[in-house]
Amino acid sequence: MGLLTFDNPVFRWYAVAAAIMIAKMMSQAWITVFRMIKVNGGFRYPEDAQKGPANPNPRPDQLLPNEYVERSRRIHQNDTENIPLFLAAGLIYVCTAPPEMLAVGLFSAYVLSRLAHFYVVLTARSHELRATCWAIGAAIVYFMAGATVWTALKY
Amino acid sequence: MGLLTFDNPVFRWYAVAAAIMIAKMMSQAWITVFRMIKVNGGFRYPEDAQKGPANPNPRPDQLLPNEYVERSRRIHQNDTENIPLFLAAGLIYVCTAPPEMLAVGLFSAYVLSRLAHFYVVLTARSHELRATCWAIGAAIVYFMAGATVWTALKY
Amino acid sequence: MGLLTFDNPVFRWYAVAAAIMIAKMMSQAWITVFRMIKVNGGFRYPEDAQKGPANPNPRPDQLLPNEYVERSRRIHQNDTENIPLFLAAGLIYVCTAPPEMLAVGLFSAYVLSRLAHFYVVLTARSHELRATCWAIGAAIVYFMAGATVWTALKY
Repeated sequence: MGLLTFDNPVFRWYAVAAAIMIAKMMSQAWITVFRMIKVNGGFRYPEDAQKGPANPNPRPDQLLPNEYVERSRRIHQNDTENIPLFLAAGLIYVCTAPPEMLAVGLFSAYVLSRLAHFYVVLTARSHELRATCWAIGAAIVYFMAGATVWTALKY
Repeated sequence: MGLLTFDNPVFRWYAVAAAIMIAKMMSQAWITVFRMIKVNGGFRYPEDAQKGPANPNPRPDQLLPNEYVERSRRIHQNDTENIPLFLAAGLIYVCTAPPEMLAVGLFSAYVLSRLAHFYVVLTARSHELRATCWAIGAAIVYFMAGATVWTALKY
Repeated sequence: MGLLTFDNPVFRWYAVAAAIMIAKMMSQAWITVFRMIKVNGGFRYPEDAQKGPANPNPRPDQLLPNEYVERSRRIHQNDTENIPLFLAAGLIYVCTAPPEMLAVGLFSAYVLSRLAHFYVVLTARSHELRATCWAIGAAIVYFMAGATVWTALKY
């Protein structure tokens, strides 16, 4: 029987965790846009420093990097490096028919660790705190990948 | 019954949309390579500015950023931030057993919005046009993520 | 019948290949961290150049780009542009019910081509060798995307 259906509670938890992570990562683009509007700069496209409805008073220095905007771009980059791996590893992990409590714990911990990572980077907390949040998410993805290989080897 | 099979017309439409987006994003790398060859620069790896079959007359300034090449890299980065989310959100959305017409509309609109976004960035059109194309794709991914959570909550 | 189960040998091979690629890409972050520690620099976050347990003797030049660290970041970026496409294309390809020998060959060749690409970039080999390794992986993803469209059109 296929396990990738909403009849399977583990898949339902995965689907909700995945939807939250997808919405979170997509929203990072809006945060970058919000910050570019707020500082009126940090643009990357030369055409964005042209006169237009969204930019009535263009200046060449609008194309210079702005740390406030770059911080949002780095969070986006970190999401890009991590969240697709969770989406794929989690889906395959659902197919290993894991115990529901374990799966729920892993999916919840992943989502919480990423939201904590987001907050820690946004507010420029210490490197140690950022690394801890990130490492929890990484460990969960490694665990799910390991469980996948383990399940495959049992056949 | 599993919905992730080619017997399910919604999955077939998803699979075709996904294949187009995968081929599109993969092709962006070739466009970057084409542009690096055309301007004979914009390289990022120091070893690429060494003498070799692909670079008979190396120059140190081949490693400087080149806007024509960087534009292709930014499109690639935008794909990287967006297309994996569509691939995951769309697959889970198929499992919610959506109405076929709605699903086909969403998948088609996503593909068209991304191809339009590609054209708009490649030809350096206005920020407003680029933002509109991007926002359509983002809205579709949000909608699919929302439908996923909604379906899970109904159980 | 669903094909996305561990009872399907093609899915098992996909799951193992996916797990290896997920673990590989996740590990690239650790390699970047290792290199930042080794050169005590190449940081991107201003807060990382502050005094703390991980950085007892901060210097402003720790925030300058460092080629040894940037090389690891470029490998990570290349993974980010490629591996999620393999994960998605491979999963959909499993649903096309391909011949097992062909699927095993494609998945194995993909994993080997990416590990070779990693080694070639890490050791700064020639552009030609790097391009060849990358192109093999790209060709496999294109092939799987094409097989997906072909299967959908047969219905």
